[in-house]
Amino acid sequence: MAEAVETLDGWYMLHDFRQVDWTAFKKASTEEREQAISELNHLMASWQDVEGEKQGSFGFYTVIGHKADLLFLNVRPTMEELTELETALNKTKMAEYFTQPYSYVSVVELSTYMAQGKDPETDPEIQARLKPILPKWNHVCFYPMDKRRQGDDNWYMMSKEERVKQMYQHGMTGRKYAGKVRQIITGSQGLDDWEWGVTLFAHDTLQFKKLIYEMRFDEVSARFADFGSFYIGHRKEREELERIMHV
Amino acid sequence: MAEAVETLDGWYMLHDFRQVDWTAFKKASTEEREQAISELNHLMASWQDVEGEKQGSFGFYTVIGHKADLLFLNVRPTMEELTELETALNKTKMAEYFTQPYSYVSVVELSTYMAQGKDPETDPEIQARLKPILPKWNHVCFYPMDKRRQGDDNWYMMSKEERVKQMYQHGMTGRKYAGKVRQIITGSQGLDDWEWGVTLFAHDTLQFKKLIYEMRFDEVSARFADFGSFYIGHRKEREELERIMHV
Amino acid sequence: MAEAVETLDGWYMLHDFRQVDWTAFKKASTEEREQAISELNHLMASWQDVEGEKQGSFGFYTVIGHKADLLFLNVRPTMEELTELETALNKTKMAEYFTQPYSYVSVVELSTYMAQGKDPETDPEIQARLKPILPKWNHVCFYPMDKRRQGDDNWYMMSKEERVKQMYQHGMTGRKYAGKVRQIITGSQGLDDWEWGVTLFAHDTLQFKKLIYEMRFDEVSARFADFGSFYIGHRKEREELERIMHV
Amino acid sequence: MAEAVETLDGWYMLHDFRQVDWTAFKKASTEEREQAISELNHLMASWQDVEGEKQGSFGFYTVIGHKADLLFLNVRPTMEELTELETALNKTKMAEYFTQPYSYVSVVELSTYMAQGKDPETDPEIQARLKPILPKWNHVCFYPMDKRRQGDDNWYMMSKEERVKQMYQHGMTGRKYAGKVRQIITGSQGLDDWEWGVTLFAHDTLQFKKLIYEMRFDEVSARFADFGSFYIGHRKEREELERIMHV
Amino acid sequence: MAEAVETLDGWYMLHDFRQVDWTAFKKASTEEREQAISELNHLMASWQDVEGEKQGSFGFYTVIGHKADLLFLNVRPTMEELTELETALNKTKMAEYFTQPYSYVSVVELSTYMAQGKDPETDPEIQARLKPILPKWNHVCFYPMDKRRQGDDNWYMMSKEERVKQMYQHGMTGRKYAGKVRQIITGSQGLDDWEWGVTLFAHDTLQFKKLIYEMRFDEVSARFADFGSFYIGHRKEREELERIMHV
Repeated sequence: MAEAVETLDGWYMLHDFRQVDWTAFKKASTEEREQAISELNHLMASWQDVEGEKQGSFGFYTVIGHKADLLFLNVRPTMEELTELETALNKTKMAEYFTQPYSYVSVVELSTYMAQGKDPETDPEIQARLKPILPKWNHVCFYPMDKRRQGDDNWYMMSKEERVKQMYQHGMTGRKYAGKVRQIITGSQGLDDWEWGVTLFAHDTLQFKKLIYEMRFDEVSARFADFGSFYIGHRKEREELERIMHV
Repeated sequence: MAEAVETLDGWYMLHDFRQVDWTAFKKASTEEREQAISELNHLMASWQDVEGEKQGSFGFYTVIGHKADLLFLNVRPTMEELTELETALNKTKMAEYFTQPYSYVSVVELSTYMAQGKDPETDPEIQARLKPILPKWNHVCFYPMDKRRQGDDNWYMMSKEERVKQMYQHGMTGRKYAGKVRQIITGSQGLDDWEWGVTLFAHDTLQFKKLIYEMRFDEVSARFADFGSFYIGHRKEREELERIMHV
Repeated sequence: MAEAVETLDGWYMLHDFRQVDWTAFKKASTEEREQAISELNHLMASWQDVEGEKQGSFGFYTVIGHKADLLFLNVRPTMEELTELETALNKTKMAEYFTQPYSYVSVVELSTYMAQGKDPETDPEIQARLKPILPKWNHVCFYPMDKRRQGDDNWYMMSKEERVKQMYQHGMTGRKYAGKVRQIITGSQGLDDWEWGVTLFAHDTLQFKKLIYEMRFDEVSARFADFGSFYIGHRKEREELERIMHV
Repeated sequence: MAEAVETLDGWYMLHDFRQVDWTAFKKASTEEREQAISELNHLMASWQDVEGEKQGSFGFYTVIGHKADLLFLNVRPTMEELTELETALNKTKMAEYFTQPYSYVSVVELSTYMAQGKDPETDPEIQARLKPILPKWNHVCFYPMDKRRQGDDNWYMMSKEERVKQMYQHGMTGRKYAGKVRQIITGSQGLDDWEWGVTLFAHDTLQFKKLIYEMRFDEVSARFADFGSFYIGHRKEREELERIMHV
Repeated sequence: MAEAVETLDGWYMLHDFRQVDWTAFKKASTEEREQAISELNHLMASWQDVEGEKQGSFGFYTVIGHKADLLFLNVRPTMEELTELETALNKTKMAEYFTQPYSYVSVVELSTYMAQGKDPETDPEIQARLKPILPKWNHVCFYPMDKRRQGDDNWYMMSKEERVKQMYQHGMTGRKYAGKVRQIITGSQGLDDWEWGVTLFAHDTLQFKKLIYEMRFDEVSARFADFGSFYIGHRKEREELERIMHV
């Protein structure tokens, strides 16, 4: 029986992906559309206020491709706050023109070896990572993943030493992208359908590809990583909502 | 040919997940909405009465994410009672605003080695576990699972001794979470698409993640567990229905 | 090249699963609903007549869970009769309130070693099994399955002797459930998406679970069985249709 | 690097499966329904004319089960002709009551060893097989398939000798069904989601099952064949369209 | 840890597949249809202008089968330009009659060994390949793919020498099709659900099949390639839009 990793756990994240039914939105009256935009604007403003009060964080993104059109990314101290703000969004006028093709619920996770000799409850760097304010970088990339448990490639049957070694090498690859890509790792065992969520931020979308491609040659990815779908979004200011929804 | 495990089987469970069509619900008249809420309230009250009479149990939960909005969890002595109460829910006014994205049917299952030296038909602890009253804890986590039968990782080809040993270690991991997580294991071979359902209850959602993550390093999970989707819900009183459905 | 098994083939079966659109059914007028019920009643009566004339068999079941609400199970000497009665059902008034989430087409199959020393064309027991009248037992369980062809677990690469031996042991497990579970095995290679369909009948739903669970420890299941979805239904008289559809 | 097989390639096939929305069709006026039937009748007549002119072939089939209701099977010298006739069907009145749950595009393929010592461009037998007129037999069976590339079971890593030997044995199994089953093999690497399509024709549906089941014991199927969905249809004359669509 | 390949990355591609709702389009008024065609025509003209200014490229294709009806293929220096032109298409009148069953986002990728001794920033051949103008050939074939990481067939665990050798052989197979098939390889690690997209162009659809089939015998495909769906389209001039959409 392999030794389990201990983790530090922080705030919860809800990646809430929405698709716009443009036909229905165009068929709505000008008043309905204005009301929908205004109401969603207020809801997003309230989420920004929570970030201002350091009780959470919020990001708004347009998403490329058929998988989604928009991403509302909220971070909160408890999962139930996320359930409630998801419901609040569902009840808005705008949600009458949205479907919700995907979502992901997870909790910020740090390995305890990051905390060596520090008190995670008070150390400011650890606290900042556990309770993250989303970077205001241009682009976001989200994907869920599992560590493989298949024949000879079974992550959870390896010794802790081997796992730590492989994760360390993996971290070294990531470190080359300092200043280019920032990442938030969230755990979702028992919370959603994959074991982890990975949320990357970059100024340039190409860095997502370069980082992921290079990492795939790390043994921990090559032998042990199974990936879900990849979603790419572009960060937008709340003030851009009206332009985005203009029809 | 490996020796089969004997089980004790108790009440049946139906996990009935529903999604709300908020647009249709908002388009209904105030009277229709009030009628829908009132009728569903009465149905849930009747399910609570069954729990009061110790003829079953009932839990009502809001669910996070795109997979579902609500979970109606009923426990009954026979499966057909569950089929009938599902149909009763389908026929309510409220169901006109629901879809049913998922459900799971299974039966409470205990291993017979739990019953050593006891008469399961009369032993109060065993009877209480076979005919469970759902804990009134804050959060619920449901997922279905299989024991793997793949190449060298074939649970059903192992000796009973090895299986019992691995399950015992697994139980030891679970025991660390006493007071934090309660679980109901249900069997569903021949009843639904996976072999088991696992329903966990906790005061704090983080304990779901901690338990599942730690257990994944047990050999029985690492080598032999295949998981379906994970659903997380928050327990609600029947009286909260009106607030939850308020638009 | 392994030696192929010879089979005796009998009547064809169509498992026709339907889901009720209760909202649409409630929105229909009383006259429309009565017409729909009466017309479906007549169609089912005609199917029962066919059973009376020993030209086929028919069963009607309510189904638990989100996968289906109703099962119409017809048995006929030719497949095209089944195609035609499926179309007849599709054209009824009631079908305007149905969707068809699943179906399965297969043909009753017996191994020839059952027929040793007998003439299958005239032997009454073999004829009764090839042209089955569906048991009037309380519950039905249907699932499709494949024999695995994967790495070292390749059923079709094993010698006939080994296959016969494993099937014999499997049959011994089944025999323990005589009087509790009856089964009809149908072949569907070339006819539908899995290799076989299994239709079980029981007085008590728990026997489905007990049989399937115990059989999973047989080598033929543990190493070689891949399963599709499981559907459970409860047998209903035609006269119950009105009550079932009452809204 | 294994030696690639050379193939002879003939006409293209489009298997175009349609589902009927009976509710919408019944709600149409008698005039609309008559117009829809008449227009589709004309389109099918034009496809038959093409067959008469030996510029292609056409078959019309009713399909059992939830996967489809109808199959329009067209054969043409170029793929783009198929794209255009599919669009022509899409634009008919009748298509307003159809959905298209599945389709398959592929090209008739013969192995070159069939052509030993013959000039495939002029040999009448080879030409007839490359440019097939669909048999007017009662039933059709379609399924797509891949040759497996998995661990030790990798078709494309085997020597050409071994592949030819296994295909020869497979052909011997097929030959037993001469007069009972006719087959058209089409290649679809680079054209659709599987590597081949198999279209079988029989007077008796049971022969599909017998052939496929017996072939599954050939090593080439047992170790190397991965199958998609199976679709079974019954051949209909164009004149039967009105009866088939009668509501 | 295997050595990662360095790549040169060029323009981004969005494969935007659309399905036509012909029923809705026919129900629109003549004015609405003309407006929809005219507006889409203008949008496509603007995309052609971008190609004229060498700031991107554009191709318009009809697609065979149930997977899609049309393909709008745009190439741009940045991903966000693609997100915006996708949204522009979504907002057109014509999009009210479209659904979007699939899309793919990726970036043109060249291996650096192609650039030996050259400055990729200025070399005209490399620049032309990184910033491709889509060939005006008759047919297009698109499919996404992964390099396999499974047991002993793990591309990312092989030495760089072995990978380069296999890719070289693979390139030799491709070279046989010079003048018959042109290809654009795009990378999508971190951008979409597969690792690469492959877009082929040909005068004759049969060459797609011949190329893909022959390549499947290369070790790099036989052991290491996993494929997604294949989509085939026929290149159309913008002026043909009216004919294509004529109902």
